[in-house]
Amino acid sequence: MEDNLALLVVGSIALDTVETPNDKVDNALGGSSSYISLAASYFTDPVHLIGVVGDDFPKEHIEKYKEHGINIEGLEIIPGGKTFRWGGRYHTDLNVRDTLFTELGVFESFSPKIPEDVRDDKYVVLGNIHPALQLQVLEQLKSPKLIICDTMNLWIDTALDGLKEVIKKVDVLIINDSEAKMIAEEDNLIKAAKIIRNMGPSTLIIKKGEHGALLFKDDKIFAAAAYPLEEIFDPTGAGDTFAGGFAGYLSRTGDLGFENMKRAVIYGSAAASFCVEDFSTKKIESVSLDEIHQRFLRFKELTEFKDAEL
Amino acid sequence: MEDNLALLVVGSIALDTVETPNDKVDNALGGSSSYISLAASYFTDPVHLIGVVGDDFPKEHIEKYKEHGINIEGLEIIPGGKTFRWGGRYHTDLNVRDTLFTELGVFESFSPKIPEDVRDDKYVVLGNIHPALQLQVLEQLKSPKLIICDTMNLWIDTALDGLKEVIKKVDVLIINDSEAKMIAEEDNLIKAAKIIRNMGPSTLIIKKGEHGALLFKDDKIFAAAAYPLEEIFDPTGAGDTFAGGFAGYLSRTGDLGFENMKRAVIYGSAAASFCVEDFSTKKIESVSLDEIHQRFLRFKELTEFKDAEL
Repeated sequence: MEDNLALLVVGSIALDTVETPNDKVDNALGGSSSYISLAASYFTDPVHLIGVVGDDFPKEHIEKYKEHGINIEGLEIIPGGKTFRWGGRYHTDLNVRDTLFTELGVFESFSPKIPEDVRDDKYVVLGNIHPALQLQVLEQLKSPKLIICDTMNLWIDTALDGLKEVIKKVDVLIINDSEAKMIAEEDNLIKAAKIIRNMGPSTLIIKKGEHGALLFKDDKIFAAAAYPLEEIFDPTGAGDTFAGGFAGYLSRTGDLGFENMKRAVIYGSAAASFCVEDFSTKKIESVSLDEIHQRFLRFKELTEFKDAEL
Repeated sequence: MEDNLALLVVGSIALDTVETPNDKVDNALGGSSSYISLAASYFTDPVHLIGVVGDDFPKEHIEKYKEHGINIEGLEIIPGGKTFRWGGRYHTDLNVRDTLFTELGVFESFSPKIPEDVRDDKYVVLGNIHPALQLQVLEQLKSPKLIICDTMNLWIDTALDGLKEVIKKVDVLIINDSEAKMIAEEDNLIKAAKIIRNMGPSTLIIKKGEHGALLFKDDKIFAAAAYPLEEIFDPTGAGDTFAGGFAGYLSRTGDLGFENMKRAVIYGSAAASFCVEDFSTKKIESVSLDEIHQRFLRFKELTEFKDAEL
């Protein structure tokens, strides 16, 4: 492990109320930066979490962060403020969900402030928040080595100019396949990837849910499979967890070559495959690095084949 | 290559009229057994083609079969009969197509007759035809070593009992993801695979189009990626070509172990990736085994990653 490879994570922190066809959970820990930080914490240290909550935010969640070695110096707690709350209901087809409510609370006026002593973190994840806030973060960074950015269809629909401004400045963009098609205005994913990479990011990851993920860098493509799961308990946060595992592994190893990026994609996929096995952050807060590594090896078994004489 | 590993191929033979967003072709060689035989012919010899055409079937197509070493002893040519004709139009999203016409012609009363001297072929592909016809073929076989079956949603909708009868008797079932969900009445593909394998076939391949394919055998799963293509010219026959490459490679090698089945899936995928690069059988009739093998190696590059110390 290299020295001083701290990881900065900015994103939302929420209390999620989630209904799946089988069960329900109220006010569970959620938000992009919760998932990203927890997943990254298995790989690297310190993780600097930047976010905002109200003083109604349960102390146990703060303890959870701390137990995972997540540094919360950059976590603003607004006195008298309400933490961002989100409610959603998944259909039997877990790819479809309805948002039941969104109460922004203190998140509405979130303006990410990076503490002075963490502005020179080399690895940065811009979790899924408004592109204008992602830009504010970028302006406060001193000499980042790798900026990883996640986003969502909402910002493509409502803040495309700002999003394109962000995309221009980041090294790795992580989006899902429908978002890639939207941004590129192109249905063929391989063509869409070219178009998006011409917008700025040297590396692009397109997540395809149960079909895995594609990594594009230079003229190379890596296709990662999805882990075969018979039960998906709660898909919330899987994409964030992927980004956290990916970023944490890169931060840990300090190697930004294509071969190592492939491994980072698999560690991210392995972490995400645990995330969906239980509600909220439950599984991703209780797994171990060894378990994640064992699943990494399962991904290898799943896709490996040997050449033979024809 | 083992001796005497002949491959028997039964399916439709058609003259296809296909419109894509870019171009159109009339009365091109088509039908499941044309694609399967041509793809298999690169790997194994002899390929015994069983099918029916009218005497309007162009001599050049028969020459094409012969040039590829395909034995047409089992090709019935009905005097005064009309060859099966199919017309289809693809949307800009090539996953969607409309059938413009279906003129069954001599195919309507097709009753597959396996010539006496090829009834002991060890490798058999039941291409996509009515399950009742697939059963007729099975009854004429003497001592098959491996029966591979392809089918389609039409028979799941209209002839499910017959199809289940066929499925019970085959070794390898090849279907796409939506068909797997239909047969199993289960949305999770990993669960659906278990249900279908309990219906009979020891090996199941689920094709996922641009997302690759899954191979299930014993308690093992192999996930194959799709070849990244920027242009898909004409998707017609890709699934049949996959089956042909898969079957041809297994027939050539005579090894039915899981490791070799994985390679067969990749050779099938490689063949299919060529098929979609031009109209009809144009590309798959003009490619070479070396080109298919080079693409096999590209699939390896695309998915391979190395373990590293954590």
